[in-house]
Amino acid sequence: MREQKNGNRSNGRTEIPEGGRIEGRNAVSEAIRSGKTIDRLYVLDGNTDHLIGELVKNVKKEQPDAIISFVPKERLDQMSETGSHQGVIACTAAYEYAEVEDILAKAKELGEPPFLIFLDGIEDPHNLGAIIRTANLAGAHGVVIPKHRAVGLTATVAKTSAGALNYTPVARVTNLSSVIEDLKKQGMWFACSAMDGENLYQANLTGPIGLVIGSEGDGVSRLVRERCDFTISIPMKGQIDSLNASVATGIMAFEIARQRSLKK
Amino acid sequence: MREQKNGNRSNGRTEIPEGGRIEGRNAVSEAIRSGKTIDRLYVLDGNTDHLIGELVKNVKKEQPDAIISFVPKERLDQMSETGSHQGVIACTAAYEYAEVEDILAKAKELGEPPFLIFLDGIEDPHNLGAIIRTANLAGAHGVVIPKHRAVGLTATVAKTSAGALNYTPVARVTNLSSVIEDLKKQGMWFACSAMDGENLYQANLTGPIGLVIGSEGDGVSRLVRERCDFTISIPMKGQIDSLNASVATGIMAFEIARQRSLKK
Repeated sequence: MREQKNGNRSNGRTEIPEGGRIEGRNAVSEAIRSGKTIDRLYVLDGNTDHLIGELVKNVKKEQPDAIISFVPKERLDQMSETGSHQGVIACTAAYEYAEVEDILAKAKELGEPPFLIFLDGIEDPHNLGAIIRTANLAGAHGVVIPKHRAVGLTATVAKTSAGALNYTPVARVTNLSSVIEDLKKQGMWFACSAMDGENLYQANLTGPIGLVIGSEGDGVSRLVRERCDFTISIPMKGQIDSLNASVATGIMAFEIARQRSLKK
Repeated sequence: MREQKNGNRSNGRTEIPEGGRIEGRNAVSEAIRSGKTIDRLYVLDGNTDHLIGELVKNVKKEQPDAIISFVPKERLDQMSETGSHQGVIACTAAYEYAEVEDILAKAKELGEPPFLIFLDGIEDPHNLGAIIRTANLAGAHGVVIPKHRAVGLTATVAKTSAGALNYTPVARVTNLSSVIEDLKKQGMWFACSAMDGENLYQANLTGPIGLVIGSEGDGVSRLVRERCDFTISIPMKGQIDSLNASVATGIMAFEIARQRSLKK
């Protein structure tokens, strides 16, 4: 579960002062290799350097959310703080990922049963930001997202979270299923949001819980769903298929909060 | 309350087959005069026609949500279907507004106490779309928005509503307060979402109800709030100020749906 190795371990907080700027082939290459989230990558237009070519290819594949711009030398010179950009400058994400252990430690510190929100493939940064905002206000201790096929902590996510990213830790893991398996051994229960689930309001959601929400298009993947203890649905009227992912998460997360407050 | 006069009255539905394209000075001018919602207005770059100049001024003032683009003659020629655009082409909104009466008639037809969602100044089209989607699935009979200082039924709203605009009528009124006043005389109760309101879960929300939601930045305006019968809040934890407007609407609308289902 240790996805990101960074100097500043964060006591369950995800804030660092601001996004960093990294210049030069080797520095950028090393940052990518070590798992830094690239927000924007500026590359010399007409680049012929093989290492930089590889680096662009890697970012495109591993971090599809990163914005890659090919710009003239003058622009790079102007942006450069070191004066030796070697044809590449990367702006890294303003927020760092927490670890799942940090989130559990935070719940323990508060003396509350853990309440985590697992997102199986949310792709829209506005949805992720709104969900982190919801997590903060519903009293969830943190959010867990997958490393692949999902949006990470981009600037848009940070903005849409309305400051919640400063308080609510977000962990990014390679394999959601195996993290769920681990946490079940530690006594957590997993509720999977699904079309054909149990009535949300009749489910008991007061214990240590992981709320699992699927992607905008496909819902929760089969592998992740099979790991969950039970499925829940919001009873719905109307003619259309489904709620917006962040609205559905809000309704479920606040039902957990409501049940917890009644139990006290 | 009769805001839009259009040929096709809609039995509480807001769908017309698709957004239309209107070409030529007089046709566009007439469409604007008759209250058609303009999504996009394409005007000849360097236009010197006085009528078109007036028309652009009107759209800017009356329909601030419309996107106005000044484009070269070649572009207009290419877009034109009639071959005589005269320097202006308008794309009208794909959806028409309903009337508040249509929404009430729909509730009556279903034999349900009316449940309307009033939005006092939502500006983000993604929020409006998500709220219409929520309204459909929570069993609200319609949505009421103000004519000014709020987003209308743009293409983005239609898309974000995920098809709900085909089923859930949206009325646009000049003065929310006076509509609320009218509906109170007809026996409806108005619940205003506010920071310092009554605990949502302890309020009785089962009768004929108007749920009033404020704008993203400022909440419900004083005039509208003063017209409401009571205020409600979602009990919140966390460090930040407020939920995303569409998430908050979702939690409140589904609490109304939950209370109504328990009452049956």
